[in-house]
Amino acid sequence: MLYFDHNATSPLGAAARDAWLDATERFIGNPSSQHRVGQRADRALEDARERLALMLGCRAGELIWTSGATEAVNMAVADFASRGGEAWVSAVEHPCMIESVRYWFLGRYRLVPVEGSGVINLSWLEEALRSGSRPSFVAIMAANNETGILQPWREATALCESHGVPFFCDASQWLGKKSAGELGRCAALVGCGHKFGGPQGVGFLKSNGSVTPLLRGGPQEAARRAGTENVAGILSMVAALEDRDANTAEFEQRVTFRDSFEAQLRGYCASVSVIGADVPRLWNTSAVVMPEIDCRQRWVVKLDRAGCAVSTGSACASGKEQASHVLSAMGLSVSESARVLRFSSGWDTTEANWQRLLTAACQALGSLKGGC
Amino acid sequence: MLYFDHNATSPLGAAARDAWLDATERFIGNPSSQHRVGQRADRALEDARERLALMLGCRAGELIWTSGATEAVNMAVADFASRGGEAWVSAVEHPCMIESVRYWFLGRYRLVPVEGSGVINLSWLEEALRSGSRPSFVAIMAANNETGILQPWREATALCESHGVPFFCDASQWLGKKSAGELGRCAALVGCGHKFGGPQGVGFLKSNGSVTPLLRGGPQEAARRAGTENVAGILSMVAALEDRDANTAEFEQRVTFRDSFEAQLRGYCASVSVIGADVPRLWNTSAVVMPEIDCRQRWVVKLDRAGCAVSTGSACASGKEQASHVLSAMGLSVSESARVLRFSSGWDTTEANWQRLLTAACQALGSLKGGC
Repeated sequence: MLYFDHNATSPLGAAARDAWLDATERFIGNPSSQHRVGQRADRALEDARERLALMLGCRAGELIWTSGATEAVNMAVADFASRGGEAWVSAVEHPCMIESVRYWFLGRYRLVPVEGSGVINLSWLEEALRSGSRPSFVAIMAANNETGILQPWREATALCESHGVPFFCDASQWLGKKSAGELGRCAALVGCGHKFGGPQGVGFLKSNGSVTPLLRGGPQEAARRAGTENVAGILSMVAALEDRDANTAEFEQRVTFRDSFEAQLRGYCASVSVIGADVPRLWNTSAVVMPEIDCRQRWVVKLDRAGCAVSTGSACASGKEQASHVLSAMGLSVSESARVLRFSSGWDTTEANWQRLLTAACQALGSLKGGC
Repeated sequence: MLYFDHNATSPLGAAARDAWLDATERFIGNPSSQHRVGQRADRALEDARERLALMLGCRAGELIWTSGATEAVNMAVADFASRGGEAWVSAVEHPCMIESVRYWFLGRYRLVPVEGSGVINLSWLEEALRSGSRPSFVAIMAANNETGILQPWREATALCESHGVPFFCDASQWLGKKSAGELGRCAALVGCGHKFGGPQGVGFLKSNGSVTPLLRGGPQEAARRAGTENVAGILSMVAALEDRDANTAEFEQRVTFRDSFEAQLRGYCASVSVIGADVPRLWNTSAVVMPEIDCRQRWVVKLDRAGCAVSTGSACASGKEQASHVLSAMGLSVSESARVLRFSSGWDTTEANWQRLLTAACQALGSLKGGC
């Protein structure tokens, strides 16, 4: 099976597996325990924190281990909500951001609009801030999960900083694919292991301020997040990111595999359109609107039978048969949105794999006759 | 190093390691994805849910995967709080229960008292319920983490059922050590993997009603808990519990190792007293009050130097130098509480290991001269 759904979850990488197994042998204690076995686990955790901080360019003390990006986002949003004010979040954020904002900022939030290109409207943000409004925070993701479209988070951070507003960045899809280097500048930041070859069930929140816990209990994580730390998971996640982050420049060159795939697919069928074709995108992601001839479900099934695991928009939204909020925000119709397929490659995906996917996609298109 | 701190965290067992590695190879998809790779992961998750439900004696649909017991408790407490009423929780619950109740039931909770023996006062509960009060829920843990003392959760369940009050049981320390068989009868129940040889960072909530999510976002877990499921962690946890739960009768016989240790320790030093000596306890746990001659911190250090990893009360409380709320509730003075050591063995701990611990403990006592 050719796996083209790395934006949903990426299989565990070798570095992550080794680190996990090593940790389960060497760091068996509870980091809160006072004996040497516990203290050894605690030192390993703190070492991992330093290493992640180094990659992100932040202080280790700002990092809080969580069970994933969803928990980290919920925690940060609940914390921001406790300080009052509005939440301003981009219209294309992940459901964990939108749903937690809807709950914690009930009626007190604004969606930062995106252009038809899929990139947020930075002028809207600039004007809104210049008008004197001061939200509790502004959230704009680094890269979109459904389309791979990159957002101008560096510019948004600078803009928010200049107005004294905390900028919150969900970097789940960016990390491991592009350099983590400057992300630590964001006031709040989240990521999770399983999007870059680390294990599922582990992530982090970086916050440059004090954080009220969402999970209450013991004083773990400097009393910011209760619960025994997932030592092996954390070490494995950090090892995975180190492995990816050191080579992002090389990975970015593989954008040619994706670009060639898209060009050939459009060459085969001119009615296929590529989402975000004219704006910067992650090197691994291709979201295309397939011809109006069949429902998206069947496109996935056809490709599945041809041995290719691909996605209809995001995995999170796949259970519910409603139009993607990301694509709607970009102005796609419900009918177009229903025909979008997402292909997302991994770090070991070769040009030959992309070409096999192309063959399968062209065969699926060809079998539908007359649609192209 | 002789590890006698399994109640804090237990090293990954062989069955759990195998299941985790197997899952990371075979179930690499996101369970929410529609393609075969995703659906295979989803089926594995549902199979694990059925297997856990079978062990607990509940319906699979009642089980929600979480990042651990702390998250599961927070989630259940927040959900109960949304329905109004008071929370009645035992005075010896884990900090995650007490702290989340303090937050979500601000000023609307009662502590169910324990006897000097460490067992909850069932008559208090019976009378309180008979008086007509109907709390939102009653929470009593199955076995205490600091002392190993068992609570009459079956009787409490029946009592609560007869009054139409949901009974909530934290079975984190019970699972894997004693039979899981009847726990599914509790209206709400939590457990976590790393207390019985599964991985850290994974647990579950069993609830017989609908549950409002604490972590919001995607519709995972029937819209009860957002976030990509930790497939390998869940499969590993369930494999670990199956491995332990099938042999609890055999494990329980090892109580003789612990009993013999306690008898010999008291024979060596009559001023050592065993907490909960006269009431049913977990077979693996021994909490003793050491002689008044030194602070508890130093007892741990002495045993650590002698090659034994033991605990001062619970790991969660070990960071803070304040008296354990569990021991205080049992009537121990701050001075006594400060001298308590907890020895908690594992499933592979032998009689010879207990005897080596005894030697180390006696040497530590002997070196203090005149204390016994």
